[in-house]
Amino acid sequence: MSELDLAQAVLAGDRLALARTLSHVENNTTEGRSTLSKLFAHTGHAHLVGVTGASGTGKSSLVNQLARYYRHPGEGLLPLRVAVVAVDPTSPFTGGAILGDRIRMRDLAGDPGVFIRSMATRGSLGGIASTTAAVVQVLDAAKFDMILIETVGAGQSEVEIAHLAHTTLVVEAPGLGDDIQAIKAGILEIADVLVVNKADLPGVENTERALRGSLDLAHPLPQRIRHHGQFETVPGQDDRIEAAEPIWETPIIRTVAIEGTGIPELVKAISDHRTHLDATGGWVLRERWRLKTELDMLLTNRLVEGFYTSLPAGVYDNTLQDMLERRISPYQAVEKLIEMVI
Amino acid sequence: MSELDLAQAVLAGDRLALARTLSHVENNTTEGRSTLSKLFAHTGHAHLVGVTGASGTGKSSLVNQLARYYRHPGEGLLPLRVAVVAVDPTSPFTGGAILGDRIRMRDLAGDPGVFIRSMATRGSLGGIASTTAAVVQVLDAAKFDMILIETVGAGQSEVEIAHLAHTTLVVEAPGLGDDIQAIKAGILEIADVLVVNKADLPGVENTERALRGSLDLAHPLPQRIRHHGQFETVPGQDDRIEAAEPIWETPIIRTVAIEGTGIPELVKAISDHRTHLDATGGWVLRERWRLKTELDMLLTNRLVEGFYTSLPAGVYDNTLQDMLERRISPYQAVEKLIEMVI
Repeated sequence: MSELDLAQAVLAGDRLALARTLSHVENNTTEGRSTLSKLFAHTGHAHLVGVTGASGTGKSSLVNQLARYYRHPGEGLLPLRVAVVAVDPTSPFTGGAILGDRIRMRDLAGDPGVFIRSMATRGSLGGIASTTAAVVQVLDAAKFDMILIETVGAGQSEVEIAHLAHTTLVVEAPGLGDDIQAIKAGILEIADVLVVNKADLPGVENTERALRGSLDLAHPLPQRIRHHGQFETVPGQDDRIEAAEPIWETPIIRTVAIEGTGIPELVKAISDHRTHLDATGGWVLRERWRLKTELDMLLTNRLVEGFYTSLPAGVYDNTLQDMLERRISPYQAVEKLIEMVI
Repeated sequence: MSELDLAQAVLAGDRLALARTLSHVENNTTEGRSTLSKLFAHTGHAHLVGVTGASGTGKSSLVNQLARYYRHPGEGLLPLRVAVVAVDPTSPFTGGAILGDRIRMRDLAGDPGVFIRSMATRGSLGGIASTTAAVVQVLDAAKFDMILIETVGAGQSEVEIAHLAHTTLVVEAPGLGDDIQAIKAGILEIADVLVVNKADLPGVENTERALRGSLDLAHPLPQRIRHHGQFETVPGQDDRIEAAEPIWETPIIRTVAIEGTGIPELVKAISDHRTHLDATGGWVLRERWRLKTELDMLLTNRLVEGFYTSLPAGVYDNTLQDMLERRISPYQAVEKLIEMVI
């Protein structure tokens, strides 16, 4: 299939072409990049929902239940097309991800309105985030209404991946470790909706109280700070983007995903957040910020690759050797290499 | 104090100068960079030990106990000078880190052979890792024998920070989440020593069995793969570095840090690992790989900053606007911006 056909087939809803395009994109092939460029004009429709939380919180079940709910929203409501992208930057075992897919698929198998993709990539963080961004664009162009981006953990990776979403859910569960407070601090900033899953377990009140306490504590840090935190690390700043988003009161929703309890309430919170973004101009701010993050990632990769390619053979290794022998410091090494190329 | 004095004062063991230099380095000031370049020639002596693990494993107590042990190693043994660098990429609250310091300090307060520094930085991941590298260099030049680099979590951040250490401890504890297997997969690769802390809790046998099972499962992934994983993301590769390290059988050590149980065994495992690295040439391989990681991080930052500075005013914002309106794709935007500068 030629590139042109591939993009057109994806737009026409061909699942095989979709899977093939995603493989091209994940492997960063020329065909993948050019298909992406063709599909990009057709993106911007989907609601991107990030779902993150530590191992053991039952995130995957929650994502499954959300997908099922969107497919069967009850009488008089139109089902939405749902894609799930599961990103596990800590797992080097593709096998695990594929197995996970199969288990998930059992639930939603054969439904053409559902598409699930796991990415168990071992690349650099920047690489994972930009590949995820590209995968999400393909799915957006393929007319999925809701794209659920699931990530493991509570570290910097999740913060990076949260930049890709319009709405970020942070999933907690009772009784996972005793220094909950510490974890919350960082993760609260990216949460648009907090979910306490496994809410039938003992300790749910404590977990919810701790979360609410942290939210109150973080009160001088509303969405405004979220943006500051992000933009201070991004070059080429733009005053318009630094404008604060209107304040959104982060709701805390209790769920028991395996029983489906709380899912309608969670779906409503997600939809409320979208309404809020639409009504306040927050949607456009997040779109800018998502695309800016992606542009910066791609630029960085290009610049670095280009630089290494231009270095005369042997220079890099000799410089590193000089560093090892403490003849030149890392900063001096950088100056030396840069002077050589520019 | 002039830069020259600052570097000399650090080398002479002046704690105030040390703290001041670290602040300069963390804020990436000109004085910080130039002091670093002066100090770099005096580095390469310290044994850098990374300590990572999820929240709730009792990592901090473990690090405290290690520090105490190195200071009071028992009759006939020389105490070592110990520095602790606590990196929490998820915490935006500097206040928390400072509070943590005070609690820690109570234990080891007034001992001039101990220095503790917390970094609760909000920067990008690359920024945190290169700042940590610089902080560690200053402490190395200040003649600390053991530098314990403590990080929270099990994500990409820890993998990045593990690149800074000669020996990486991964800390687990019984009963933290039900899908332990999933977490282990990624983290196993960076572990030189596995610690099961809180080994007096029920479930310790299960945790240890799961870890041992994962180690066996990962058997085709010894240190050799560790290096592959790292270098495939780093440009400017060097065949010599890709050479595999000799195989090291990752030990599993049980501890109850708050009681000091297992600390001598852990200290021995760390020391055995250093002996192994020295005897097999692994030390030099890790030194190269540490310094290469740092060089690549600094180069990337410099290239990106330089590029944004060279862009004509307004071009970046207009390009982003074109992306927002789907007139050009992210890849096309990158090409356009690059052509403008180069």
